[in-house]
Amino acid sequence: MRISELGRRSGVSTATIKYYLREGLLPPGRATAATQAEYDETHLRRLRLIRALIGVRGLSVAAAGHVLHAMDEHRSDPHEVLGIAFGIRPPGSGTPDTTEEEPSPEAAALIDAMGWSVSGSNPAREVVDRTLRTLRSLDIAYDWRTLLPYAELAERTARLDLDRIEATTDPMEKAEQAVLLTFLLEPALMALRRLAQENESTARHTGDGSA
Amino acid sequence: MRISELGRRSGVSTATIKYYLREGLLPPGRATAATQAEYDETHLRRLRLIRALIGVRGLSVAAAGHVLHAMDEHRSDPHEVLGIAFGIRPPGSGTPDTTEEEPSPEAAALIDAMGWSVSGSNPAREVVDRTLRTLRSLDIAYDWRTLLPYAELAERTARLDLDRIEATTDPMEKAEQAVLLTFLLEPALMALRRLAQENESTARHTGDGSA
Repeated sequence: MRISELGRRSGVSTATIKYYLREGLLPPGRATAATQAEYDETHLRRLRLIRALIGVRGLSVAAAGHVLHAMDEHRSDPHEVLGIAFGIRPPGSGTPDTTEEEPSPEAAALIDAMGWSVSGSNPAREVVDRTLRTLRSLDIAYDWRTLLPYAELAERTARLDLDRIEATTDPMEKAEQAVLLTFLLEPALMALRRLAQENESTARHTGDGSA
Repeated sequence: MRISELGRRSGVSTATIKYYLREGLLPPGRATAATQAEYDETHLRRLRLIRALIGVRGLSVAAAGHVLHAMDEHRSDPHEVLGIAFGIRPPGSGTPDTTEEEPSPEAAALIDAMGWSVSGSNPAREVVDRTLRTLRSLDIAYDWRTLLPYAELAERTARLDLDRIEATTDPMEKAEQAVLLTFLLEPALMALRRLAQENESTARHTGDGSA
């Protein structure tokens, strides 16, 4: 199909498609003339994937590019792709990042208490410490110990995630599943928490009138 | 303290503080002259709260204003404040929203299967349906049944949340705790999932070499 049809079927403007082509997020089509190229279903699917990462998850074009390139290079290795997608390993190199950054002390204590094996460069460490600092600046006396029950639920969630990824029979698709299920499920998991909170709050509110 | 000291201690620029005053997010100080006002520790704390909602959670100024006003009006009623903060009930009125919006069919099926009591106007319903549509557009055959194990973990998370809110002895602070713990914990909970995923992925990757 021509670029115009690709745009029509994907709902992405031709200008945006050309931008993704220039930035290397979308592989070039098959040239049919000096200024014309043919695109196929793989381009359409890739465009949907780009829109999901950027539109649904709010990734920058550069971050989406890193994730997509990681997926292309290590299609059968979800562990490697997850590492790159999470910012644990630098994109491109494929070698483990051995430069240990200064770990966030509260995340480090929590990871130690959980017995987890987590790279010192996982950016999620800093998110944990930053959240606790923000809560304490608002006089909520939380520390890493308060998060332990949540960490146990996160561990069970991660097992579910990895079970789902491993259930994919095509090894070439595991890496893509890993990225989609970890990134795209995040809003749904937070939505489930809010639905459950409303249910729980309603039950306690109407249950005995004391809440 | 003067507005300049409030700015210095909070790290928020005087121009931004004036903007929050105009928008009603920050209550006015005590006028000491025609163009001067005195601010106190309650203003400093409120500024930290505003920055947490806008800066950490990415709420718009208007959305943060709704949440703050709900907190001011219903300080001892966390159930009411959570309803407004989640967009379930319209801000200001305080009356339950009885206009049932067309529920998202997949979220409705999931809520029914979980036996939850959730308002038809909870916007988290649409997030669930939208996520599933996005995943299916990428050939991942997920439906609401696939989310059931996650919903069970979300239910346990919500119980933890409400236990924490109820543990606050000062009823006036329950509403604020409810908002802080539900909004501000979200990034930390997603970070815990990513830490747990790295741990689980590493364990399976190195465990038997088959992952």
